Amino acid sequence: MIYLDNCSTTHKKPKCVIKAFRKGITKYNYNSGRASYSKSIDASLKVYQFRLNACKFFNAPDERMVIVTKSCTEAINIALRSNIVKGGHIVSTMFEHNSVLRTLDYLHNNYGITYTLVPPDSNGLISPASIAKAIKDNTYMLVINHISNVVGAVADIAEIGKIAKKHNLIYVVDSAQSAGHIRIDMANSYINYLAVAGHKGLEGPQGIGLLICNNIKPKPIIYGGTGTNSESIVQPNDYPEGMESGTMSMANILALDQAIKHTDKYLEKNCNKVKKLTKKTIKNLQNIPEVELYSNDSALGVIAFNIKGHDSNEIVQMLDEYGFALRGGLHCAPKVHEYYGTTSRGMCRIGLSHNNNTRQIKKLSSTLQKIITKFVPE
Amino acid sequence: MIYLDNCSTTHKKPKCVIKAFRKGITKYNYNSGRASYSKSIDASLKVYQFRLNACKFFNAPDERMVIVTKSCTEAINIALRSNIVKGGHIVSTMFEHNSVLRTLDYLHNNYGITYTLVPPDSNGLISPASIAKAIKDNTYMLVINHISNVVGAVADIAEIGKIAKKHNLIYVVDSAQSAGHIRIDMANSYINYLAVAGHKGLEGPQGIGLLICNNIKPKPIIYGGTGTNSESIVQPNDYPEGMESGTMSMANILALDQAIKHTDKYLEKNCNKVKKLTKKTIKNLQNIPEVELYSNDSALGVIAFNIKGHDSNEIVQMLDEYGFALRGGLHCAPKVHEYYGTTSRGMCRIGLSHNNNTRQIKKLSSTLQKIITKFVPE
Repeated sequence: MIYLDNCSTTHKKPKCVIKAFRKGITKYNYNSGRASYSKSIDASLKVYQFRLNACKFFNAPDERMVIVTKSCTEAINIALRSNIVKGGHIVSTMFEHNSVLRTLDYLHNNYGITYTLVPPDSNGLISPASIAKAIKDNTYMLVINHISNVVGAVADIAEIGKIAKKHNLIYVVDSAQSAGHIRIDMANSYINYLAVAGHKGLEGPQGIGLLICNNIKPKPIIYGGTGTNSESIVQPNDYPEGMESGTMSMANILALDQAIKHTDKYLEKNCNKVKKLTKKTIKNLQNIPEVELYSNDSALGVIAFNIKGHDSNEIVQMLDEYGFALRGGLHCAPKVHEYYGTTSRGMCRIGLSHNNNTRQIKKLSSTLQKIITKFVPE
Repeated sequence: MIYLDNCSTTHKKPKCVIKAFRKGITKYNYNSGRASYSKSIDASLKVYQFRLNACKFFNAPDERMVIVTKSCTEAINIALRSNIVKGGHIVSTMFEHNSVLRTLDYLHNNYGITYTLVPPDSNGLISPASIAKAIKDNTYMLVINHISNVVGAVADIAEIGKIAKKHNLIYVVDSAQSAGHIRIDMANSYINYLAVAGHKGLEGPQGIGLLICNNIKPKPIIYGGTGTNSESIVQPNDYPEGMESGTMSMANILALDQAIKHTDKYLEKNCNKVKKLTKKTIKNLQNIPEVELYSNDSALGVIAFNIKGHDSNEIVQMLDEYGFALRGGLHCAPKVHEYYGTTSRGMCRIGLSHNNNTRQIKKLSSTLQKIITKFVPE
């Protein structure tokens, strides 16, 4: 199998991640932050160190504001549903995933919040200028997809952060496709909420995400035990406890801790490799006349294309027969397809990781050409 | 270490669970229900088989209504926050965990819902008669803790189910402490929502819970991608997809699948062992005059006590020095302590599993006696 669905979940995890994960299920079945016996305190310390490590990696100021979630989706939900301004306005983009779009729809229906989805410019990128232009008097929040999970376009989150700061907006960055691929500096990019997926670029396990908060306080969306103020039936305003009701997975925390350390070490090297592979893939696809390409040279790790006249799922199913694992369809990002006119047929999407290589990219092109030949009656 | 905190998380997991968990992180890093390539379809099939297995174990009718959550707490939140009747009334008990109580508080503040918390009878149990008595004209939901996570009292959920059916109430059972210890029959107990913890009696991993729905439709509390109706920014009414936005942990699903199969095989045998150990522990504690006991013979697996004149945390810390791992404090269930007058000092809590043995129970008694002797100046 040639795995090209790394933007869904990176398949091959580093050894240190697997080791920590295994340790979790055999040696760390304790509840952190609940009990006073030594093994439970040891678990709590490990969780604390994990939060410190995450802060350092993303340049966030306060380890208490690293909220462990089950997914990047949950993190996005918490961010967007906190600090609500009834009747307010949110600026976001057409590149957003349904985790943002469907939450915006919920905010619209329940709090009369309106939103503007900024389209990409002619070069396929969200320009800071068009973001600035979309801001209204009642805009209070800015939600930006760092790397599009469909076309791989990279937003300049540092530049957009300056706009957020200037207009005093709550700045939310969805790093689902970028964390682990690009270094993110929360403090210097003025990011208030960073939503992180553990299982993609960071190469951690599935089932864990982070909401890292900088100079802002989120509101919980799940109520329950916190190990704090237990005498009160009012959800406490404690951070991170008040945000993390329910037993957390020690295996996931230990594994993501290792994953972040490992990523930190190899980020620039791996990023360069993915950049090169992306450029190579795009160049190869540009050389096939039947290919319609939706990504350009500035994409990172994610490349979308179609074969003229064919449905994306038809193509990925044919590629599956040749051992390629990639996805067709809409990739849970409907507005991208509205923009490119591909709502009915979707797009074939290549999701690269540093574990891929040029041989695989070459084989993809030759296989696509083989498939295209089949379509032409001889 | 003698681990007596199994009601927090069971420490030693069955080999088949560990094996499946490891398989998850090495071989199943695919997203189920999203792609059409063979490995992803294989993952989806595994998830489907898991749902079937869970239905069979709990006698639930529809595998589409087995909702995977990150915890029992999340499952309880979904159940209580679905099918809301504004200004309605909910009957629950003083045995509830803060996952129920704090969600009730949220419902009260946001939807004007009132609730009655039924106290235990003189025998320390919630009687079906007192539940029936608490039902008002505007009662629409009944939320019952199956086994108290503090005193181990077992509610007769089948009898209470008859009352729920008679009054046409939505019947929610919190099985955090019971699933894996007592066989639960959803259909025959008329349970609409069963909230399940994976990491306790079922001996699965931390970070996974279930909400199993019988003849009722819940509402999501997290919005995002579902792999269905992706062209729409409205969260779809699809089950289970619409309830499970975000990437799920294949490792947790594979491991809980094995855990349920394993539990099914040994449930009666293990239950008998835990019953015997519970009785033995209670008998031993009754023989120590300085012990105040809050659990009685009918308890299952969970036993609460104090040493006269001492704070619970003082005692568990001394027990820790002798190698015992158990918890003091309130155990996130404040109303139990309100009832027993132990809000300030809490209770020491023993949480048994079939992995404990009579030798450990005996050693606990002798250690407690040793500790008590230390308190008496000679």
